Amino acid sequence: MIVDNAVYVAGRRTADPESLDETFEVLRARHGFAWIGLYRPTPEELDAVTREFDLPALAVEDALAGHQRAKMEKYGTATFFALRPARYLDAEERVEFGEVHLFLGDDFLISVRHAESPDLGQVRRRMEADPALLAKGPLAALYAVLDQVVDEYAPVVAGVENDIDEIEDQLFNGDQEVSRRIYELSREVMALQRAVHPLVDVLESLRDDLDRPAGPQHPAGPDEELRDDFRDVHDHVLRITDRVDSFRQLLQNALTTHATLVSQDQNNEIKKISSWAAILFTPTLVGTIYGMNFEYMPELHWVLGYPFAMGLMLALGFALYTVFKRKGWL
Amino acid sequence: MIVDNAVYVAGRRTADPESLDETFEVLRARHGFAWIGLYRPTPEELDAVTREFDLPALAVEDALAGHQRAKMEKYGTATFFALRPARYLDAEERVEFGEVHLFLGDDFLISVRHAESPDLGQVRRRMEADPALLAKGPLAALYAVLDQVVDEYAPVVAGVENDIDEIEDQLFNGDQEVSRRIYELSREVMALQRAVHPLVDVLESLRDDLDRPAGPQHPAGPDEELRDDFRDVHDHVLRITDRVDSFRQLLQNALTTHATLVSQDQNNEIKKISSWAAILFTPTLVGTIYGMNFEYMPELHWVLGYPFAMGLMLALGFALYTVFKRKGWL
Amino acid sequence: MIVDNAVYVAGRRTADPESLDETFEVLRARHGFAWIGLYRPTPEELDAVTREFDLPALAVEDALAGHQRAKMEKYGTATFFALRPARYLDAEERVEFGEVHLFLGDDFLISVRHAESPDLGQVRRRMEADPALLAKGPLAALYAVLDQVVDEYAPVVAGVENDIDEIEDQLFNGDQEVSRRIYELSREVMALQRAVHPLVDVLESLRDDLDRPAGPQHPAGPDEELRDDFRDVHDHVLRITDRVDSFRQLLQNALTTHATLVSQDQNNEIKKISSWAAILFTPTLVGTIYGMNFEYMPELHWVLGYPFAMGLMLALGFALYTVFKRKGWL
Amino acid sequence: MIVDNAVYVAGRRTADPESLDETFEVLRARHGFAWIGLYRPTPEELDAVTREFDLPALAVEDALAGHQRAKMEKYGTATFFALRPARYLDAEERVEFGEVHLFLGDDFLISVRHAESPDLGQVRRRMEADPALLAKGPLAALYAVLDQVVDEYAPVVAGVENDIDEIEDQLFNGDQEVSRRIYELSREVMALQRAVHPLVDVLESLRDDLDRPAGPQHPAGPDEELRDDFRDVHDHVLRITDRVDSFRQLLQNALTTHATLVSQDQNNEIKKISSWAAILFTPTLVGTIYGMNFEYMPELHWVLGYPFAMGLMLALGFALYTVFKRKGWL
Amino acid sequence: MIVDNAVYVAGRRTADPESLDETFEVLRARHGFAWIGLYRPTPEELDAVTREFDLPALAVEDALAGHQRAKMEKYGTATFFALRPARYLDAEERVEFGEVHLFLGDDFLISVRHAESPDLGQVRRRMEADPALLAKGPLAALYAVLDQVVDEYAPVVAGVENDIDEIEDQLFNGDQEVSRRIYELSREVMALQRAVHPLVDVLESLRDDLDRPAGPQHPAGPDEELRDDFRDVHDHVLRITDRVDSFRQLLQNALTTHATLVSQDQNNEIKKISSWAAILFTPTLVGTIYGMNFEYMPELHWVLGYPFAMGLMLALGFALYTVFKRKGWL
Repeated sequence: MIVDNAVYVAGRRTADPESLDETFEVLRARHGFAWIGLYRPTPEELDAVTREFDLPALAVEDALAGHQRAKMEKYGTATFFALRPARYLDAEERVEFGEVHLFLGDDFLISVRHAESPDLGQVRRRMEADPALLAKGPLAALYAVLDQVVDEYAPVVAGVENDIDEIEDQLFNGDQEVSRRIYELSREVMALQRAVHPLVDVLESLRDDLDRPAGPQHPAGPDEELRDDFRDVHDHVLRITDRVDSFRQLLQNALTTHATLVSQDQNNEIKKISSWAAILFTPTLVGTIYGMNFEYMPELHWVLGYPFAMGLMLALGFALYTVFKRKGWL
Repeated sequence: MIVDNAVYVAGRRTADPESLDETFEVLRARHGFAWIGLYRPTPEELDAVTREFDLPALAVEDALAGHQRAKMEKYGTATFFALRPARYLDAEERVEFGEVHLFLGDDFLISVRHAESPDLGQVRRRMEADPALLAKGPLAALYAVLDQVVDEYAPVVAGVENDIDEIEDQLFNGDQEVSRRIYELSREVMALQRAVHPLVDVLESLRDDLDRPAGPQHPAGPDEELRDDFRDVHDHVLRITDRVDSFRQLLQNALTTHATLVSQDQNNEIKKISSWAAILFTPTLVGTIYGMNFEYMPELHWVLGYPFAMGLMLALGFALYTVFKRKGWL
Repeated sequence: MIVDNAVYVAGRRTADPESLDETFEVLRARHGFAWIGLYRPTPEELDAVTREFDLPALAVEDALAGHQRAKMEKYGTATFFALRPARYLDAEERVEFGEVHLFLGDDFLISVRHAESPDLGQVRRRMEADPALLAKGPLAALYAVLDQVVDEYAPVVAGVENDIDEIEDQLFNGDQEVSRRIYELSREVMALQRAVHPLVDVLESLRDDLDRPAGPQHPAGPDEELRDDFRDVHDHVLRITDRVDSFRQLLQNALTTHATLVSQDQNNEIKKISSWAAILFTPTLVGTIYGMNFEYMPELHWVLGYPFAMGLMLALGFALYTVFKRKGWL
Repeated sequence: MIVDNAVYVAGRRTADPESLDETFEVLRARHGFAWIGLYRPTPEELDAVTREFDLPALAVEDALAGHQRAKMEKYGTATFFALRPARYLDAEERVEFGEVHLFLGDDFLISVRHAESPDLGQVRRRMEADPALLAKGPLAALYAVLDQVVDEYAPVVAGVENDIDEIEDQLFNGDQEVSRRIYELSREVMALQRAVHPLVDVLESLRDDLDRPAGPQHPAGPDEELRDDFRDVHDHVLRITDRVDSFRQLLQNALTTHATLVSQDQNNEIKKISSWAAILFTPTLVGTIYGMNFEYMPELHWVLGYPFAMGLMLALGFALYTVFKRKGWL
Repeated sequence: MIVDNAVYVAGRRTADPESLDETFEVLRARHGFAWIGLYRPTPEELDAVTREFDLPALAVEDALAGHQRAKMEKYGTATFFALRPARYLDAEERVEFGEVHLFLGDDFLISVRHAESPDLGQVRRRMEADPALLAKGPLAALYAVLDQVVDEYAPVVAGVENDIDEIEDQLFNGDQEVSRRIYELSREVMALQRAVHPLVDVLESLRDDLDRPAGPQHPAGPDEELRDDFRDVHDHVLRITDRVDSFRQLLQNALTTHATLVSQDQNNEIKKISSWAAILFTPTLVGTIYGMNFEYMPELHWVLGYPFAMGLMLALGFALYTVFKRKGWL
């Protein structure tokens, strides 16, 4: 599906072509650049832009197939980006990963989305409100998309951090489910690392390109503003990878701590159980003694022998209870 | 055994020589390149190609001996590749590793296979259907073989991933066999890493060669299409190493989690066992009390003394059962 | 809030302007450099300096937003520093992190503080007492601030080291709370690493700048004294990262050791409990024997049968006690 | 002891001098190169070659002292190699490390052996059978020695691999000695890593030397055959380090798995023991009940009361046995 | 305190000045170089040399303050070294760290010692006995000091190795104190790593300096002998770091192994305790049976009923004992 399809000249939307063919004509007539948004495109749609913009065949295949790792690949006529945006699903306390592919050329940016998020329409609206920036061409649009994707990692990181806080509470409150939750969260954190880490290299490579003197892809030479913008995204990515890496460490520590707490728990329970066993057992000893069949056992003939024995049982039990209570075993 | 043996000129199969000697003659007459497929070759067969194409002696020894690590070695007259293809055996839930050796020269590609897989015949048929690509010479044939080997890792990765999912289920369902399975799967994952990781360097080295200006091995200068093709294989290898590395981490976590779950299990069982011990023991206490030999024990003379004692035993047992049930120990 | 606001010429405070506008005028008139200290500035205050000194917009946004990772970012007109000073709160045995942002230009240093510490007023007073150093311009003031921030890490490191010593005592004294404390301290040590580690790169980058021949930011060429000063800070940072990294290792070891100690503890308790169980149980055996109803049991008819049985019980119990004591189980 | 001592000209043994002095004379007369094999040399013997060939004093000291780490050190007049060959002692299932030192010059190779293995005599005989290779001078002899040392690691690696297989069997068969064996084998694997790992750098450095254009140590310029030979050794070393590194990982995993298996074992034993305790205890409960002294207990007066009670005991015991058997506790 | 204070010309001690001022005069008169040994110097003493030799102020502060990490810092007029020598205290089985600071200039070497060891007086005597080496100037003296410090690590490494051997014995003999000892030894090993590791970089940096062509600090160009000497020290440092790194690994393994052994121990004890519980309990069952009050129990009326019951008890106990002994539980 073609979600949006416009040609921008000097940062302003100059045409809302009704079909891709019209877009290509307008673009050739007025120059400027085309920004085309596709959502789960049909092979035909992808084929049309591929032919018009001479997109690299292998990258187009990747975009159709999906399940790409986050990466940037430079081809002769275009640069291909695969991004793995993420969303935190509050209800399920789970991270969901999407997939966005971008083709960047001298006069076009084509986005291929496979999931609802991220909201690239909003990105476009924000850019259209800033014609000065948009006038810098497809690289500015690329920045806007990258910025959006990276910004959307922030709530994911916050959600995972919140999960870790909850896990810590569960950990020290003896919740048995916590080992499963730690295991599953580490799995998600690893997936998040796989999504975010490659962006560090992607953004460093973009920065190096922008620092290079004038060339085909940026004929006006390095643009300071754009370079700072990309650096800002780079900085956000670094902040996120920092956090995510520390999450992994924390979860590892939580796992080890949990093992120890479980053992400690067992120690405490063994003490408690043994205490109660002793408290229950002492009366039995008394009962066994007065169950002996000796002919000459004075207590047996006392009128108050039975209450005496029962009292002895209770007294011993209570004494043991007090002893264990004092030792902290109960 | 010589599986297939053909000379290609301008991407088309021009001769089906009946013997190696004929191949060598045809090759000298018509130029083009020879693509020879050997399967567990006799020393004589290997000797013939070694003499004709001046293959490096040490590499030929390696190819005869087998059990090579995945690698690429450049010699003066040829480049030697050792690949470790893999198959996932569904029945045994096991990864099986094969071995393929390749000799690449200016006008030949010789493959030496030691196992059934991979199906190099299919690779050849696919290439013969694309003469434009095959016309690029032995490097194109090399690409086709590498692509096949790397593509065949995908089902292996899927199989291992499925094993890990099963292991996770076993883990949280308390299956005792899981530690053995984790241990054995990590061993396979390590073998898979040893097979796949060296390919990253091999493909980077090939890419660097292809980026270099015109030279003896590619006299026409860098070929963009071929370079992109090799990069595509490189990308697949990276995707696979990413996955395999994360498998290792996951299995490590599973091992640690399992240790904790086993301890937690023990805690629960100790509670359960102690509860039943207490439930069994309380009646004994009652019995011991009424087994005492005091002269003056009113209950002993009651007509309903015995049923009363039995009722007391059951009541106490039931009371304890309820208490433990409520505390979640049973 | 504008905490302090002065213009320095040749290392001496030449003006105490009442408003930022006055500062800017004075600066233009007398040259020298402005050192402006802001504490949780209003957007208007930050706006004024941003316009006057042409501060980079993205960095100003970061400074307003806070929660930056420690870093240095060079922009065309200014260099932005984000620092994470730390304090050790003795009462709570906790590390508290602050945040300081700096903008360094050819003729200004602007500090933006978000927390009480560090005491930058003190830094300024110390520098005003050393006009020779201050005459070297904003870089000297930057050095003074960095030096203060790094020096303030020393008591934090000492505090954490003290915590680790306490943890070791708790560890070998069997304090149950120690696993929680280890876990929480590792979390703080990780936060400390995140605050301190980036400074290594920041200071190496500054050193490289200072080693470079004369240029716009230091027109007089490399200043040996300043370079040595920055190297001194660098050395302190390295000393701190060394210590902090080793803390992490120590805590990891403490966690593993604790797990073993808990198991060892359990072994000892099981031995102790079993010993007492045996001591309690042996008299029961004696009692059970003399509770048998055999017609011909000589002891039952002895006058001293009952004391004999009781003596036997005590003797057996005492014998077992001695045995277990000797084996070190009690 | 001087084990062998010969001068080679154009790859042929031309003299069997009776003393070192004669060797030196022959060498000066006929050129070629000397290959001298020493076994635990006396300081005098070492002194003679040191003076004649101007060996570096510090390296000679190292060779006398022994206990060197594997390394290569270039001095002005000679290059010093310390190698750590290894043997697998089948009887003791232990790896034994030897030590060989080599001095390589333009016209000599001196080997100093401190242990029986490796068999350098055999290396010499093999080389003397290949005069073409030996004619390439001392570097060819060096290659032969390195090749022998590296080849002798293969049975060691196989032996350790076999140990690991045995350990895995012990592991899953519950052999208690396995933790000691794992610990000791990891110690040996670490020693093996220390012996083999430095060879990677040594061989890379040799390869770089051989790739360099003509120079004093190889006046004829790079020799392709020799370079391929050294690369072959390099490849073997890489294969061995790969295996040895994976051994370490495997043993680490075995250690962790073992800890879990021990806990799991405990769980199973606790269940078994508790089951038997319950089976033994139930008859006691029955016995206690019929030991009560109630006046009105009908069963006590039954003629078959006693067999009934015994039957009840057996029946309950058997019922419990069946229940536990079904639950898999027994 | 000024321990020694001499001026050397052409490798010979030419003056024993009575005060620092005299030293400075002699040095100016006769050239050569000054070698001054300070032990816990007063600020005044340090001040005198600082002024005379123009020592870098920040390094002098470090030398006064102590607690420096091992490092080398080049200043304009001098190079500053901080070393952390170590001693193994046999009595306490503990490693003690000292601190030595060195200032190296074109015509001086000043050592500042803060602890008894290392014995720098002995270093000086050894150097004075080798005027040829000493004639090479302050660098030769620096070599001698470094050599001494590094040589003194050898007994420390041996001591720690011995501790590890003892720990291994304790480990497999079930000594409970071993976890504390492992923990504390790892702490020392980490401190040793911090002392030794930086020397690798220091010596590599010195080597690079010595390889450089003639310059101010070594006007005669690279000196081969000195370079080999420093390389020898470098090699020793590498040998030590290798050992120390492997100690850390070994202790880590020992910690993990210990945890498993403790669990295994528990398994064995639980089996032993349960066996004895069963042996004790069976007679109780017999006693309980014959304590039942059935009217018709033939055994009760046997004359030998009582001995029969006692015999039954013993027989059952002995039978169980034999069974458990055979299963290896006792």
